[in-house]
Amino acid sequence: MEEEDRVKFLHTADWHIGKKLAGYDLLEDQKAVLKQIIEIAKNEEVDAIVIAGDIYDRSVPSEESVRLVNQTIAQINLTEKFPLLVISGNHDSKTRLATGAPWFSRSDYFLHTRLEEAFTPIVIKDTAFFLLPYFEPVDARIYFDDPDIRTIQQAMPRVLEKMKDHFLQNQRHVLVSHFFVAGSMKTDSETKLEVGGLDGINGQLLKDFDYVALGHLHGKNALNLPNARYSGSPIKYSLSEKNQEKGVWIVETAEETTFQFISVSPFRDVRELQAEFSQLLDPGFYRQQNREDYLSILLEDRQVIPNMMNQLRQIYPRILQVERINGREGNRRKSWKAQEIKRKSPIDLIHEFYRAINDESVTVHQQKWIEETMHDLMKKGGDLR
Amino acid sequence: MEEEDRVKFLHTADWHIGKKLAGYDLLEDQKAVLKQIIEIAKNEEVDAIVIAGDIYDRSVPSEESVRLVNQTIAQINLTEKFPLLVISGNHDSKTRLATGAPWFSRSDYFLHTRLEEAFTPIVIKDTAFFLLPYFEPVDARIYFDDPDIRTIQQAMPRVLEKMKDHFLQNQRHVLVSHFFVAGSMKTDSETKLEVGGLDGINGQLLKDFDYVALGHLHGKNALNLPNARYSGSPIKYSLSEKNQEKGVWIVETAEETTFQFISVSPFRDVRELQAEFSQLLDPGFYRQQNREDYLSILLEDRQVIPNMMNQLRQIYPRILQVERINGREGNRRKSWKAQEIKRKSPIDLIHEFYRAINDESVTVHQQKWIEETMHDLMKKGGDLR
Repeated sequence: MEEEDRVKFLHTADWHIGKKLAGYDLLEDQKAVLKQIIEIAKNEEVDAIVIAGDIYDRSVPSEESVRLVNQTIAQINLTEKFPLLVISGNHDSKTRLATGAPWFSRSDYFLHTRLEEAFTPIVIKDTAFFLLPYFEPVDARIYFDDPDIRTIQQAMPRVLEKMKDHFLQNQRHVLVSHFFVAGSMKTDSETKLEVGGLDGINGQLLKDFDYVALGHLHGKNALNLPNARYSGSPIKYSLSEKNQEKGVWIVETAEETTFQFISVSPFRDVRELQAEFSQLLDPGFYRQQNREDYLSILLEDRQVIPNMMNQLRQIYPRILQVERINGREGNRRKSWKAQEIKRKSPIDLIHEFYRAINDESVTVHQQKWIEETMHDLMKKGGDLR
Repeated sequence: MEEEDRVKFLHTADWHIGKKLAGYDLLEDQKAVLKQIIEIAKNEEVDAIVIAGDIYDRSVPSEESVRLVNQTIAQINLTEKFPLLVISGNHDSKTRLATGAPWFSRSDYFLHTRLEEAFTPIVIKDTAFFLLPYFEPVDARIYFDDPDIRTIQQAMPRVLEKMKDHFLQNQRHVLVSHFFVAGSMKTDSETKLEVGGLDGINGQLLKDFDYVALGHLHGKNALNLPNARYSGSPIKYSLSEKNQEKGVWIVETAEETTFQFISVSPFRDVRELQAEFSQLLDPGFYRQQNREDYLSILLEDRQVIPNMMNQLRQIYPRILQVERINGREGNRRKSWKAQEIKRKSPIDLIHEFYRAINDESVTVHQQKWIEETMHDLMKKGGDLR
């Protein structure tokens, strides 16, 4: 096989366009990182871009999400003219995602959303790509007309066996798929998709492929088989991913397939920030910070801080959470017994709850409103004590 | 101009895929009629199919609706190879509908969803088609950079003027559009889209086109200009359309443009059925009927009929409404005064309401349930009388 016949492709997955982080819209972040992915593909002069499922975060994505995906895919395939190999993931609606698919293959954009499409390989240079979309056991049951297929673990050997019947002589074989491989490491931002209580697919089943381009798990190191990788999501989609390097794999087929990870930089990072409250509010400190990041604040203080969240948000607009790493002064509430709570009046309980959450007491105005509301609620009887 | 240069096209609109009628799913009906439209196009050997907006009934259509539209459009354009000229209507989400559009034109499928796309004509044989999607005044305000455009009536002359700048010598000119033309006749199933309280576009504005293929109104006779037609919806979408002939226009450009209406047959009709109750339940009668139709039943009886709806539905599964054309025996309820209602107990009011709606009395079991529920509701006070 001549060197110029070898295929070089970019492997990405789990874009989850439309996903929010603690309520914050990530479309700008997603747009910025997709732009970098296109730049990487151009710099590396790849022969194709592979997207291994979960383009969208929801089966019914927002209009803004549809617009971003449509623009990005058109740029990749029509403007930059990269061949594009795409499968649907468990987050995508296969029906909605498939809109336009029969027209796409004319410009070497192959979008597979149904199991039956997985067995016709797409050949680029020396490599045959099998695009296996996410599927449910029932899809395999119908496809193989076998009522005994009840789990993905039962279905997958049948699927892969049939794929091997379509292997081509003197070609490399790449599988593009979206599922959980046994032994992989998960984070908080993937949706559980194991079926039947079993723990994913045995990696041994994948051994006949030169490379398996996986989607579903969000860390690039979730799996370490010699011939298979998760690309991971190109963005940190949960705090548990704060230390993950995000990016794409550049894969080259050869006698031995090689793969190299190329990082992308977040538009706004997801990270922890540890400090005292006074420090966080000190311009000398916060001017050194990228205040636009998505922050988990690890607060060193123990005392009650009035109006804490509002003050912090003035400076740090995207706070994911605030954690008191040294505990809180006078914080004995956790040890309350049911008997103690029963002895308290509803109004006292409201006061203590408010203090616990907001780190300050109710105002005179709030106090008046609470008393009036409780009075109205209980005027047919009851005891405010 | 030679005869073989003349274009012949099929004009349809307002498919409203996903629309329901009185809660009944119409997908089967829609599927059947779309099949007929394709047959007509084949029999007439048209050069193109025009769809003048409102492909879908909702901006977020169901998966089943997306599947039907995707299959139908692929069959028209890829299997049967008809050029396809489509605009978005006020019911479509232009962003969602536009998915795949940049790929479609390679197979002569032109889908325009944005105002700025309206000024580049699509030329087929002797005719230049201008595809003007439904737009809002704000779209024109931005496009023409003119803050004074506040209504469609202000926008349309500007749009049409600009189109005429792009008219081609020695060509016929067809406008495909989706709006309300002043003087047209409406039915109950269109959504009001007039803006600014004005009554649509002056038909005079359209005079320079050889034909205007309109969508929005559901009756083919809604407008009678010499050079413009609504195709109407291919299905009766409200009872007020019960006597409308449904179908498509076959248009041929020539010295004088000609257009001919070709009917489609409903899978299930929307119609009225007048009879006495006993007749409706008589096999000799109902075996002569197409019982699967969507029926407005005009009941000749005046007396109370116990369990009427349940009995009718056993035989006629798709009843839209039952109307008593001779009034109802002892029906004095409409003359009740507020004072009389106040004198009645809640339980009596429930009984009378039930009788008015169901034409029968509550059962002993229902009576017990009503009394218990009322008792629970009013146990803190009140008076059941």
